[in-house]
Amino acid sequence: MVGAVTDAANHAHQFDRETAVAPRSPSEWTTHITSNWNIGDNPNGGYLLSSGIKVAVEASGQPDPLTVTTHYLRPGLPDQPADIDVDVVRRGRRFTNVDVQLTQDGKPRYKLMAAMGDLSGGTLSDQPIEGAALTREPVDLPPPDECTARMDLEQGVDLAITSRLDIRVDPKWAEDGSSDRAEISGWIRFKDERPVDTAALVLFGDSFPPSLFSLLGRVGWVPTLELTVHVRRRPVPGWISARFRTTDLHDGLLIEDGELWDEAGHLVARTRQLALLL
Amino acid sequence: MVGAVTDAANHAHQFDRETAVAPRSPSEWTTHITSNWNIGDNPNGGYLLSSGIKVAVEASGQPDPLTVTTHYLRPGLPDQPADIDVDVVRRGRRFTNVDVQLTQDGKPRYKLMAAMGDLSGGTLSDQPIEGAALTREPVDLPPPDECTARMDLEQGVDLAITSRLDIRVDPKWAEDGSSDRAEISGWIRFKDERPVDTAALVLFGDSFPPSLFSLLGRVGWVPTLELTVHVRRRPVPGWISARFRTTDLHDGLLIEDGELWDEAGHLVARTRQLALLL
Repeated sequence: MVGAVTDAANHAHQFDRETAVAPRSPSEWTTHITSNWNIGDNPNGGYLLSSGIKVAVEASGQPDPLTVTTHYLRPGLPDQPADIDVDVVRRGRRFTNVDVQLTQDGKPRYKLMAAMGDLSGGTLSDQPIEGAALTREPVDLPPPDECTARMDLEQGVDLAITSRLDIRVDPKWAEDGSSDRAEISGWIRFKDERPVDTAALVLFGDSFPPSLFSLLGRVGWVPTLELTVHVRRRPVPGWISARFRTTDLHDGLLIEDGELWDEAGHLVARTRQLALLL
Repeated sequence: MVGAVTDAANHAHQFDRETAVAPRSPSEWTTHITSNWNIGDNPNGGYLLSSGIKVAVEASGQPDPLTVTTHYLRPGLPDQPADIDVDVVRRGRRFTNVDVQLTQDGKPRYKLMAAMGDLSGGTLSDQPIEGAALTREPVDLPPPDECTARMDLEQGVDLAITSRLDIRVDPKWAEDGSSDRAEISGWIRFKDERPVDTAALVLFGDSFPPSLFSLLGRVGWVPTLELTVHVRRRPVPGWISARFRTTDLHDGLLIEDGELWDEAGHLVARTRQLALLL
């Protein structure tokens, strides 16, 4: 275990207090899911995932999630404890693969597979190949103060998550159904300015309103069936900028792609999710 | 079980014979990995996966893989038997989630999570929302006869897989390192013209040469750490066209995105993989 902290009260920041994990054995952990990250009545999927990522870090002994795929099985239960089971599938030199499952009230809420590693830099390869063709340029955004807070976008849904995350959407996407494409972009950081690490990038990958809203308006609940987050770099301090696009909807299933950059303009994470339009 | 066929000799097509599975119990299956789909000394990752998809179909009772994420743990062993374990995680009305693991010589070779469903049409949603903004147009390609066979591209590597798959690459990508982007596109079908179903799309999603070759030349082995295939539709009979792009390489890890269309011009699958440049 790498620095397991089991006393939630000791954490200086909301995110760490509200995703704190405690071991019962090396493979069995517990956490408490709060309602402070709710979207309506359900905990945000990225938040639900975050205690699982902490367990993956502890069990693997690796600091960074490189790729995380989560299958959401049932909504999480706010203000209830949860059991987190972890299985170290393969421990390698560069990567350690783990499976994690979170259970509440006797029923699994999600399962995830993660490859954990170390993104402190230069440790993965001796091939420093870079170049414009292999670099994804950051999204162009107005400054955060000229963007629209997420909580101002979606009247009618109680967004407890906006007490924890400061999400600012480019005004050009802020009006429902007004765009000719399904896209949203903006800035994100923790409300209490907790530093952004690679675990936070996984959370941020599932924290914006669905990009479908700009094209179609608020069409209904868009539950995520599967979410994959690839973390590409550790971010520098500051805001994270992000863009999400849906270009593929068929028979009620849509794929949304996302990209996240840090203030240095480096791509720090990419996301893809399969969601259901209800 | 939905029509389990356990006698490999009964199958009319190479793919079905060489991915045939037999149950020892509802959760324990066996298969035999052949060397006929090798790339060099290793079975192709998509082929290795295909017997696992067959088990997922059997165990779930659902005909189509909707999303499949595989973590490759170790290379497969050609011309050796394999054990396939399956766990039905959640059986739902629309989707059934399964976990599958393939083991050879006592060691897991991959683990996958799949959501299985029925893509026969119109069963998933009563929301027939479509439109140009939500449709991905097929790649523009010369006809198959004017493309370059995969086996002609990579002298020096023994490509047994080309005895099983007919892969034709657009000549504009066929010269190593000659392009200003990392992209490859072309056509694919089974050599023996077995009909293409949704299980075959998972295989086809990992059967082209790495798109990095067009930009950088043959830089070395590019092992897949994680592959996610989203199957979007059942294809009409005929060739599948496909395009793969790498626009993101950092510290030896790259992300390649792929899209596959049928001859009707419909998007039938999308892929994303995290690979390591060695």
